[in-house]
Amino acid sequence: MRVIIDAMGGDNAPEEIVKGAVRASKELDVDVVLVGKKEEVQRCLAAEGATDLKVVDAREVITMEDDPSTATRRKKDASMTVALNLLRDGEGDAVVSAGSTGALLTGATLIVKRIRGIRRAAMAPALPVGEKGTLLIDCGANVECTPEYLLQFAYMGSFYAKKILHIDNPRIGLLNVGTEDSKGDALRHETFALLKEAGDAGRINFVGNVEASGVYKDMVDVVVTDGFTGNILLKTTEGVAKMMSGMIKKSLMKSLKTKIGALLVKDGLKEMKKAMDADEIGGTAFLGISKPVIKAHGSSKANAIFAAIRQAKVFSESGFTDAVKENIDLLKIDSAEG
Amino acid sequence: MRVIIDAMGGDNAPEEIVKGAVRASKELDVDVVLVGKKEEVQRCLAAEGATDLKVVDAREVITMEDDPSTATRRKKDASMTVALNLLRDGEGDAVVSAGSTGALLTGATLIVKRIRGIRRAAMAPALPVGEKGTLLIDCGANVECTPEYLLQFAYMGSFYAKKILHIDNPRIGLLNVGTEDSKGDALRHETFALLKEAGDAGRINFVGNVEASGVYKDMVDVVVTDGFTGNILLKTTEGVAKMMSGMIKKSLMKSLKTKIGALLVKDGLKEMKKAMDADEIGGTAFLGISKPVIKAHGSSKANAIFAAIRQAKVFSESGFTDAVKENIDLLKIDSAEG
Repeated sequence: MRVIIDAMGGDNAPEEIVKGAVRASKELDVDVVLVGKKEEVQRCLAAEGATDLKVVDAREVITMEDDPSTATRRKKDASMTVALNLLRDGEGDAVVSAGSTGALLTGATLIVKRIRGIRRAAMAPALPVGEKGTLLIDCGANVECTPEYLLQFAYMGSFYAKKILHIDNPRIGLLNVGTEDSKGDALRHETFALLKEAGDAGRINFVGNVEASGVYKDMVDVVVTDGFTGNILLKTTEGVAKMMSGMIKKSLMKSLKTKIGALLVKDGLKEMKKAMDADEIGGTAFLGISKPVIKAHGSSKANAIFAAIRQAKVFSESGFTDAVKENIDLLKIDSAEG
Repeated sequence: MRVIIDAMGGDNAPEEIVKGAVRASKELDVDVVLVGKKEEVQRCLAAEGATDLKVVDAREVITMEDDPSTATRRKKDASMTVALNLLRDGEGDAVVSAGSTGALLTGATLIVKRIRGIRRAAMAPALPVGEKGTLLIDCGANVECTPEYLLQFAYMGSFYAKKILHIDNPRIGLLNVGTEDSKGDALRHETFALLKEAGDAGRINFVGNVEASGVYKDMVDVVVTDGFTGNILLKTTEGVAKMMSGMIKKSLMKSLKTKIGALLVKDGLKEMKKAMDADEIGGTAFLGISKPVIKAHGSSKANAIFAAIRQAKVFSESGFTDAVKENIDLLKIDSAEG
């Protein structure tokens, strides 16, 4: 099992990326390959006392200033591009990158390709709800969706929840503005009918529409939605959590009394912070790509990179991609794109 | 200034509604008219020692089981229907109801009518961001929108922020999946162009696209979006806030040490809870209706009803409706609906 790592992607590259990779190579049963400017990566490896790790040289870096839709085509020798090419060529089993989300998704689609029959790859992070998390699919890759895309997201989310999150009979919900069957716009109505049919046939465990507030009451294991509303849900979560953390901090510093209290409750609150921390959640898988490509948070430090590499290993060994391939006929409907 | 109150709407009717109305009649410079089952309302008034308040009898009640789209047409003698008819007939200056949102919006549209030229009424609650709040328009009334609807929401949000929230030059943002001008779907692209044009002409202070996380960093005063995504943002906020409050409570009860600390930090955390509390925020105005109709939260207690009545008074005296009427030509674009 070999994980290919884009050593130059993200805010803390290459130092923190290399650090996380070194830790993964020691603690997890994986080989790692680091892709990036050789001299810089080797300097970081030397600092970690791990000069034996494999490095593949790549002279360019894709930055947030590059146009995501053309970045991997224009920068052929970028660490991200080279990493994806190595994956396509069988030089490794998965890619981990903390670089530009858009560039990575476009690159994965163009270079590694989608699973045959899958219309669009989706981003599927796990929200910090319940013991095993709640999968949100899609959360930004596809701002305009058809009912067929959403049907495919539902199946892929169900397979992922089963095989990677180890949820036995994952409850699939369609994100909507109310729980009644008739709620929502045309996209929701058509998708509801498709999901209900799949549910009635026993192929997925469709539990109906779910409101955004219901998601945080642990009412489903997989939230199916278009990338636009999924992005709103994810970024609202991030915004509210940060604002509330700030308010808690401020309220604990109000007076001498609260400052003393703060010392006593510190450990308890740390656990909450950990639960809401993107770094602890690890990466976001792109579901629908023919091989595992994991996007780590742009601000990832070594811990987050380690978590993303662990996720890449679990994903790669889970049988997820085979499950999608074997069931691909169920995931298609007659459509103009047919 | 007279506010008409649906005494039978909401989870805590009529007791808490009457209590809030009695307090408002004492503390605010308003007359109140209570609409509902006379004997029940009078019993509640007697309990409050305020039998001098005006009561209008209505024998029916619209419940959550009634179809919102037909409720006020079918139940002609419901408290909500009668209240809206009184407003239309000039028997008062505003309506406050904690009853079914959908029924109230449909009823307001059918009975009180929209401002001439306004395509759709929108729900516009104030999110607990910044000192004066951030207006979210729309948040659920209209799940499918045209660019023209969103242009009208932007103008109405701008007038509301100026005249009711007293924000001098309110920053208008279009909710989107990124801040770059080109982000989003077709609806966002077309709306962006309209808002930019209005901004360039100096009619609104359009600051561009805003992400959901940016909303909670106080980057705008008015968030313009369709009712579907607005609902997702609002209900995610509610869900995350509740989940985090639960986590805080749990983490404070972990050990004897944290329990002692909890006693010391209690007051500070109460303030945060207050800021995130829907009851303290008051009601949600329906913008675009020709007279003020305020929806109070379904679970409103007396405090929330009091706040909604205060909001109705402020709204009614603000000149908002006149501002929309005077500028109506700017709010229209050539369209099929023209």
